[in-house]
Amino acid sequence: MLFDRMAILGVGLIGGSLALALRTKRACRSIIGFGRSRDRLQKAVALGVIDEFSLDVGRAVRGADIVVLATPLNTTEKLFEAMRTALKDGVILTDVGSAKGSVVEAAHKTLDHLLSRFVPGHPIAGTEKSGVEAAFAGLFEAHRVILTPLPETAVHAVEMVRKMWEITGAEVVQLSVEHHDEILAATSHLPHLLAYALVDCLAGLRDRDEIFEFAAGGFADFTRIASSSPQMWHDICLSNRDQVLNALNKFDTQLRMIRTAIENNDSTSLLNVFTRAKDARDRFAGRRRRRNGAVE
Amino acid sequence: MLFDRMAILGVGLIGGSLALALRTKRACRSIIGFGRSRDRLQKAVALGVIDEFSLDVGRAVRGADIVVLATPLNTTEKLFEAMRTALKDGVILTDVGSAKGSVVEAAHKTLDHLLSRFVPGHPIAGTEKSGVEAAFAGLFEAHRVILTPLPETAVHAVEMVRKMWEITGAEVVQLSVEHHDEILAATSHLPHLLAYALVDCLAGLRDRDEIFEFAAGGFADFTRIASSSPQMWHDICLSNRDQVLNALNKFDTQLRMIRTAIENNDSTSLLNVFTRAKDARDRFAGRRRRRNGAVE
Repeated sequence: MLFDRMAILGVGLIGGSLALALRTKRACRSIIGFGRSRDRLQKAVALGVIDEFSLDVGRAVRGADIVVLATPLNTTEKLFEAMRTALKDGVILTDVGSAKGSVVEAAHKTLDHLLSRFVPGHPIAGTEKSGVEAAFAGLFEAHRVILTPLPETAVHAVEMVRKMWEITGAEVVQLSVEHHDEILAATSHLPHLLAYALVDCLAGLRDRDEIFEFAAGGFADFTRIASSSPQMWHDICLSNRDQVLNALNKFDTQLRMIRTAIENNDSTSLLNVFTRAKDARDRFAGRRRRRNGAVE
Repeated sequence: MLFDRMAILGVGLIGGSLALALRTKRACRSIIGFGRSRDRLQKAVALGVIDEFSLDVGRAVRGADIVVLATPLNTTEKLFEAMRTALKDGVILTDVGSAKGSVVEAAHKTLDHLLSRFVPGHPIAGTEKSGVEAAFAGLFEAHRVILTPLPETAVHAVEMVRKMWEITGAEVVQLSVEHHDEILAATSHLPHLLAYALVDCLAGLRDRDEIFEFAAGGFADFTRIASSSPQMWHDICLSNRDQVLNALNKFDTQLRMIRTAIENNDSTSLLNVFTRAKDARDRFAGRRRRRNGAVE
């Protein structure tokens, strides 16, 4: 038993899947959920995801050995503030936010001496679905979890959070906060922006219904992430604003180069870009297959 | 038996899958392949995709009731020119090109009185794989095939090509050449460009190997089409140049708007775009599910 009592703030896809994974492996004696909606928390209890819940964050974290924030990014500071005096000695705090800079900033503003108990984290897993109904115990298997411990973070706290994620089947790695945010802006935040932009662009054309009628499998794959939660991605884009804008600039330069090549019938440049991209994508797919043992 | 003798020029993913589908349904007595590589054509015979082959286009089309061009877009004019005198009376000509304007232009330059026999076509199907090894009989099932007949095209020829595609399980619709090229630029050519641009952009960053290590399922889906044939997409982009540039311009305007919203912390605009896009994507996925009877 890794923890006696765990509090999960935000019992959605990620929080719910973590709870299910830890219960499956009997890593926690009891899990309490916190959220804003009584209905959804009752559903989480009914689905066997959590044991009990509270709509009061102070009550939810009381007596917990570990508190996991799986709530929207822009609620972090408020929640840290609200829970601070209710936390027990030796508690471990962690989160699952897709942008780490803003979370760490919130921690610095609010946690004081508890900063050493905080292990910022981010599981690189998810689907375009959200909500506790979409949660499943295997979500993190063979996926990466990035921890971005602060200089102040206690080594013991990092090790406990690492163990927790390893129990779910994830591979845990450590990065600096800045490096995490730069990498995720490029590989996750930017692609989501592009997918949203493309679908909204097509939805704005005059023949929009007809246009979607003629879209094929490639389009379905390409735009799947545009079915993700608008609120969550709004929060991520604004939380990781500088790195997202930086990634957008680099992409824009690349796209401009391709546009110029098309305008000038510049076969060589166009073929070079496409060939480099295909090679990189094929290498990525190959590594992914080997790691997941799955057919792509 | 729909056709006695068919010639397929270019026995790759599309040409090979069409041959397999028609053989499975016994719609053709014999199929001859044409291509540039003896090795690949021998493989196509060995795989049971075609009965025989020729490296000479004139010999390949001789005696054929229908000739299907499934060759690169930029070879169309040369092939029409080379086959013209070898075609039998009453032959039907069709193609599978992803851009129709340039194919029709090539037909106008070369086909003369045979223009009435030509039915430009485009099956909206494919995978990121290419080559005859990737071909399979079910590729077109429940997919759309767009025919863009010319004012000169004989009604009988259109009906025969329609029947051919319906035998493969496809749903056949008709559009004008211009409308086809505009729609496909938006739903297919532009997404491919964006996927290539994104992957090449990431591959150019200093931490490129590490960056791909942290890419997750969303990235894999988004960039799958960047594994498509660089030569083929080069040809498509240049063949459908005006419409592709037009689609790129519209996308650029959309992306600029999103960028401005992020720069200004403009929550309302950002949420509006993401919500509209998610709604459109969810509607598209719902229609697709109903049409394919498949789980997305």
